[in-house]
Amino acid sequence: MFLTRTEYDRGVNTFSPEGRLFQVEYAIEAIKLGSTAIGLKTKEGVVLAVEKRITSPLLEPSSVEKIMEIDEHIGCAMSGLIADARTLVEHARVETQNHRFSYGEPMTVESTTQALCDLALRFGEGDEESMSRPFGVSLLIAGHDENGPSLYYTDPSGTFWQCNAKAIGSGSEGADSSLQEQYNKDLTLLEAETIALSILKQVMEEKVTPNNVDIAKVAPTYHLYTPSEVEAVITRL
Amino acid sequence: MFLTRTEYDRGVNTFSPEGRLFQVEYAIEAIKLGSTAIGLKTKEGVVLAVEKRITSPLLEPSSVEKIMEIDEHIGCAMSGLIADARTLVEHARVETQNHRFSYGEPMTVESTTQALCDLALRFGEGDEESMSRPFGVSLLIAGHDENGPSLYYTDPSGTFWQCNAKAIGSGSEGADSSLQEQYNKDLTLLEAETIALSILKQVMEEKVTPNNVDIAKVAPTYHLYTPSEVEAVITRL
Amino acid sequence: MFLTRTEYDRGVNTFSPEGRLFQVEYAIEAIKLGSTAIGLKTKEGVVLAVEKRITSPLLEPSSVEKIMEIDEHIGCAMSGLIADARTLVEHARVETQNHRFSYGEPMTVESTTQALCDLALRFGEGDEESMSRPFGVSLLIAGHDENGPSLYYTDPSGTFWQCNAKAIGSGSEGADSSLQEQYNKDLTLLEAETIALSILKQVMEEKVTPNNVDIAKVAPTYHLYTPSEVEAVITRL
Amino acid sequence: MFLTRTEYDRGVNTFSPEGRLFQVEYAIEAIKLGSTAIGLKTKEGVVLAVEKRITSPLLEPSSVEKIMEIDEHIGCAMSGLIADARTLVEHARVETQNHRFSYGEPMTVESTTQALCDLALRFGEGDEESMSRPFGVSLLIAGHDENGPSLYYTDPSGTFWQCNAKAIGSGSEGADSSLQEQYNKDLTLLEAETIALSILKQVMEEKVTPNNVDIAKVAPTYHLYTPSEVEAVITRL
Amino acid sequence: MFLTRTEYDRGVNTFSPEGRLFQVEYAIEAIKLGSTAIGLKTKEGVVLAVEKRITSPLLEPSSVEKIMEIDEHIGCAMSGLIADARTLVEHARVETQNHRFSYGEPMTVESTTQALCDLALRFGEGDEESMSRPFGVSLLIAGHDENGPSLYYTDPSGTFWQCNAKAIGSGSEGADSSLQEQYNKDLTLLEAETIALSILKQVMEEKVTPNNVDIAKVAPTYHLYTPSEVEAVITRL
Amino acid sequence: MFLTRTEYDRGVNTFSPEGRLFQVEYAIEAIKLGSTAIGLKTKEGVVLAVEKRITSPLLEPSSVEKIMEIDEHIGCAMSGLIADARTLVEHARVETQNHRFSYGEPMTVESTTQALCDLALRFGEGDEESMSRPFGVSLLIAGHDENGPSLYYTDPSGTFWQCNAKAIGSGSEGADSSLQEQYNKDLTLLEAETIALSILKQVMEEKVTPNNVDIAKVAPTYHLYTPSEVEAVITRL
Amino acid sequence: MFLTRTEYDRGVNTFSPEGRLFQVEYAIEAIKLGSTAIGLKTKEGVVLAVEKRITSPLLEPSSVEKIMEIDEHIGCAMSGLIADARTLVEHARVETQNHRFSYGEPMTVESTTQALCDLALRFGEGDEESMSRPFGVSLLIAGHDENGPSLYYTDPSGTFWQCNAKAIGSGSEGADSSLQEQYNKDLTLLEAETIALSILKQVMEEKVTPNNVDIAKVAPTYHLYTPSEVEAVITRL
Repeated sequence: MFLTRTEYDRGVNTFSPEGRLFQVEYAIEAIKLGSTAIGLKTKEGVVLAVEKRITSPLLEPSSVEKIMEIDEHIGCAMSGLIADARTLVEHARVETQNHRFSYGEPMTVESTTQALCDLALRFGEGDEESMSRPFGVSLLIAGHDENGPSLYYTDPSGTFWQCNAKAIGSGSEGADSSLQEQYNKDLTLLEAETIALSILKQVMEEKVTPNNVDIAKVAPTYHLYTPSEVEAVITRL
Repeated sequence: MFLTRTEYDRGVNTFSPEGRLFQVEYAIEAIKLGSTAIGLKTKEGVVLAVEKRITSPLLEPSSVEKIMEIDEHIGCAMSGLIADARTLVEHARVETQNHRFSYGEPMTVESTTQALCDLALRFGEGDEESMSRPFGVSLLIAGHDENGPSLYYTDPSGTFWQCNAKAIGSGSEGADSSLQEQYNKDLTLLEAETIALSILKQVMEEKVTPNNVDIAKVAPTYHLYTPSEVEAVITRL
Repeated sequence: MFLTRTEYDRGVNTFSPEGRLFQVEYAIEAIKLGSTAIGLKTKEGVVLAVEKRITSPLLEPSSVEKIMEIDEHIGCAMSGLIADARTLVEHARVETQNHRFSYGEPMTVESTTQALCDLALRFGEGDEESMSRPFGVSLLIAGHDENGPSLYYTDPSGTFWQCNAKAIGSGSEGADSSLQEQYNKDLTLLEAETIALSILKQVMEEKVTPNNVDIAKVAPTYHLYTPSEVEAVITRL
Repeated sequence: MFLTRTEYDRGVNTFSPEGRLFQVEYAIEAIKLGSTAIGLKTKEGVVLAVEKRITSPLLEPSSVEKIMEIDEHIGCAMSGLIADARTLVEHARVETQNHRFSYGEPMTVESTTQALCDLALRFGEGDEESMSRPFGVSLLIAGHDENGPSLYYTDPSGTFWQCNAKAIGSGSEGADSSLQEQYNKDLTLLEAETIALSILKQVMEEKVTPNNVDIAKVAPTYHLYTPSEVEAVITRL
Repeated sequence: MFLTRTEYDRGVNTFSPEGRLFQVEYAIEAIKLGSTAIGLKTKEGVVLAVEKRITSPLLEPSSVEKIMEIDEHIGCAMSGLIADARTLVEHARVETQNHRFSYGEPMTVESTTQALCDLALRFGEGDEESMSRPFGVSLLIAGHDENGPSLYYTDPSGTFWQCNAKAIGSGSEGADSSLQEQYNKDLTLLEAETIALSILKQVMEEKVTPNNVDIAKVAPTYHLYTPSEVEAVITRL
Repeated sequence: MFLTRTEYDRGVNTFSPEGRLFQVEYAIEAIKLGSTAIGLKTKEGVVLAVEKRITSPLLEPSSVEKIMEIDEHIGCAMSGLIADARTLVEHARVETQNHRFSYGEPMTVESTTQALCDLALRFGEGDEESMSRPFGVSLLIAGHDENGPSLYYTDPSGTFWQCNAKAIGSGSEGADSSLQEQYNKDLTLLEAETIALSILKQVMEEKVTPNNVDIAKVAPTYHLYTPSEVEAVITRL
Repeated sequence: MFLTRTEYDRGVNTFSPEGRLFQVEYAIEAIKLGSTAIGLKTKEGVVLAVEKRITSPLLEPSSVEKIMEIDEHIGCAMSGLIADARTLVEHARVETQNHRFSYGEPMTVESTTQALCDLALRFGEGDEESMSRPFGVSLLIAGHDENGPSLYYTDPSGTFWQCNAKAIGSGSEGADSSLQEQYNKDLTLLEAETIALSILKQVMEEKVTPNNVDIAKVAPTYHLYTPSEVEAVITRL
């Protein structure tokens, strides 16, 4: 079967005889090589937690950004090719700022997610802002708008889903199982922080420290935890 | 024969010696991998019903949108690559809004369907809005205009047909047979709802719940059923 | 010989060593897969008749359009890829309307046919309106202008011929023989209707009904027969 | 040797190691598949005669145009891909009309021929009017200007020659020999007509009739013979 | 495994089945062929030191520039394809000058690094300033802004990290180990100079002289050491 | 070795491992297939002589133009693809006319040659006037300007040289040897005519007649010899 | 190893797995096929000397230009594809003239060299002035500006170095060794002339004459030696 596959899997926009787009599937593989990220939605707000791979003690941990602010009411965690994620986030920042400027109100979380996916979908189309290949990144987009808190998950095909909780990256399979066991809709934000970090701890090979994880919340505005705030969550585990 | 085929099936616009365009045929295969959708036209209006594949209990069922509003008098159900469908729907929304703005009246359902298919047909042409490959999606377009209710079916080749009833997606073969047995032109909207959902139930592997199906009607305006309205139809089965 | 052929038959504009353009020849094959269409010219006007393949009883027969109006004095029947035909017809409609607007008179049938073929010929040229492959469709163009009634036949190479009678599509070989036997220049329009439908009947696998054939005339204006008018012709057989 | 050739003969603009452009040579082959055309220059004017392949008795012979007017003082006969020839002739018509408009006088025959060949030469260059492959057609261009009558011959490479007499198409080899035997500079136009048609008769497989040949002259203006004028020449044979 | 790899590693933007972009990985290899460069951040400022390969005694050592000024508060050291680095530095110079002109204040070091990486990421996209392949160069960017001194490291994928100390180029592996042993946050600038040069000395095959190394600091403005200043550091070893 | 060569010789702008551009070398081969042309510079002016291959007695010898005027003080002889040469000559004519218009004086012969070669060099660059392959033609450019008479030789690589005498085309090897034996700087124009034609006679397979050779001089203005002037030179042999 | 190489060496911008760009390396090979050129910098100015390969006694030696003036204070010697060098020199001439016009002062030698290399680096990028392949040429750029005399060496990768002395072309290896032995910073211009020519003499296969070498100096303005000035240097050897 592998021989047959190789006939169809290099053109970014070539269907295989079974109707599959292999380059998109391979880009999804790139995410399975990435570090793990977890999102949980509570009534109070959304929590994001990510593993940071600090390959050298000389690296500045704060410069390994895997959680980023999009607008004051939206943040996102990422797994996969970080440079691709930056392009998507930058695009979303411009979109949300334009929306505020044009309409005098924040862009909804769903519209922001849709705008990101519109760009992701148009790979291989040759227009100015799009890429010539699928974006090799998945995002967990946490936000808070007139509909309350929400959590979205995007993949390289430009599709998105709304979730209560979701894990992406190399440890996502185990983390998703744990989330299904431990999640319920009445979690407090504090409980969500603890669950996110405890699941991350299970899938990480190293000891969890304020240096190798990041936590953020949108409740109702984006806030990236300081090392001491992260330390406090670790202590609670 | 397969060896011969592989010589002609990767160029998006290459005819095989028998006059076939294989990339379009492969895109049609993509739809056979998709979830099932069903449409029925009655004198009172059109009913659309879709299966939603909820792969995780943490997914927000309402965010898996497989029925979408195009204009207040037109809606559509889809099967195949959802991100492709969104691009087509977004295009149709702009077209119908432009039509209202320019002519002060709603666009007819046929013109809207034609506009969608014009875009679908132009894959591989390199202009701004078109895709570099066929759209891997089929749509059931339900609408109501000066000619009364109508139901259209589109495929990746950019062709469309008007139908009384039609099923698309992985369960379409069985569902189409059932539709031919059960359909008649004098169905009430209520009967059409029941038939659509009972056929969907046959082809779905899971138990039907308000979480894993969506129902909508255009009678004469688009309305997506609330979970309790869906529950009511399930109860009638 | 087949091995040699495969070296030259995928580039849309590559000559083989014998001076042939295989992609055009393969597009012509696409028409041999299509439904049969027949045209007859009489002194009173031109008759077009087509087979409609109604693959499902739930399909609306009137939405399977294989005869279309171009202008009030020109209509056409088609065989091959219907979506391609629609693009050509749409182009011809714009051309004939522009001509009326610019010159205050209808475009001649030959000029309209030439305009269609100019577009068909320019496949693979990369400009805005042209296709990246040959159009996989043949047209029978019936019209009436200052030179009286006329019937044109076009093929995917962008070539056209004027005919007294012509059949295209999967049954064209047998139909063309029958036309040669039965055609003479003094046919009345009524006789032409009968001949067209009786020949169509021979090449169709199913019983002829108002649902699975369409008839139109240009005499001197375009008119698509209503089901009861078609029924009347069937009765005369 | 054939194996070596196939390495270089598909790129439209690739030189082989011996300095040959095979795609141009293959386009020249396309002309050898075409119907035969003959041109003769006399002091009184130029005669063009072509074979018309009427593949069906239902075809309108007058619509198989293989001799066309470019301007009132220039006409041309063609062999090869007729749709390609139409593009060249249309281009030449625009050029000659523009020349009349800009300079108030007819374009010379040589300038018109040069304009045609400029377009033919630029295949594969990607600009607006040019083709992506060589034009698969040869033309015999007959004209009359301030230098008297002249006859030009063009081939797919964009090269042209002035001739006293010339045959192109499938029967050109035999016809050229006959022309060399029978041509002399003192022929009258009437004798030229007779020679042209008698040679055409030799290379045609069917009996010559006013339906399957066309004759035209430029003496000094373009005139396409009516069926009865052709009949008169046939009678003289 | 190597055979499989060769199927996916030449398209600049083709994912392999495991989700890898090989052309980016190969560009990273280009840096491993380059000369070694070292950066150290102290509280007083940042030190950069590079090996210069002087292949001929007739070469002007000062013309082998491997440390360049971007703005008066930012400099960078490079390893890999020097011509690629010049393009990136030139781009950064324009960006920082534009920033000063537009906002009346220096661009931050992070923004400058981001601007460089935006350009690096867009290889293969066909827009005006981007390259058709990954930039085959890594940079160590030293700067001083309102957040104090900082040191960034970029790679051909367009990703960047903030570091306390970092080595790039052919000797980077050994140099990075030594940096981890010898670095601490309380180093003085003088100690950093000594460490940088002593580590460079270990990985260079030749004796260190003012001709074959360059040293620069940003403390708080960019300064490239004169030969005698370099000599002074060598003496201290 | 031939096998290795075929890996690099089809891309118009691909270097082989030895640093060769094979497509340019193959274009140079195209010239070796062409008819022979000879140029000689004397103090009185420059003489050009070319062989004309008259393939049929019905061809108008004067229409086989292998010597052309560029401006009144510059002419050129050509060998190779004649349609390519016409494009170059046309380009040079525009350049020289523009120069006269802009500066009120004739363009120098060297500048004209440089302008021709600029166009020839840019093959494969995709801009408006350039070709997508090397021009398969060599030119001998004869001119007279403020520096007196001059003779230039150009090849498909876009390189040019100034010569005292030079032969190009299929007979160039033998002709060049003869030129080296017979040329000296004190030749009169009359002697140069005789030498040119006698050498041409040696390399031609047919008897020399005013029909199958052309002679021109620039002394100091361009003049193409009439048949009787050519006859006079033949008589002198 | 050669088999592996052939997988990566035809794309102009494809990295090999070891991080090499083979097309650039092959272009560098083109220079090793070129004639030898030598440059020496003294305190009084810079000397350039080149071998001219006069392939025929009928060639005008002065038209084989391998040393060219860029501006009155800059000249260059070249080896490799001469037509490529002309494009680079023409570009540099425009740049230096623009600089004089805009700033009222001569462009520095380094800026001029940088401008040349910017163009050389951008091969394969598809913009207007750049080439679709690397420039197959090396330059020795001699100049004199506010920093005194300087000599630069450029290669096809777009990299440049400042040198005291440098040889390029087929004899560069031996010539470079000789330069290292004989060069010192206190040479007079007269001594530099003698050294340059004596080294050139060693690597040339023919006897040195004023016809087959060129010498130029920039001291402080560009001057190309007359044949008698070259003769004088030959005499001094």
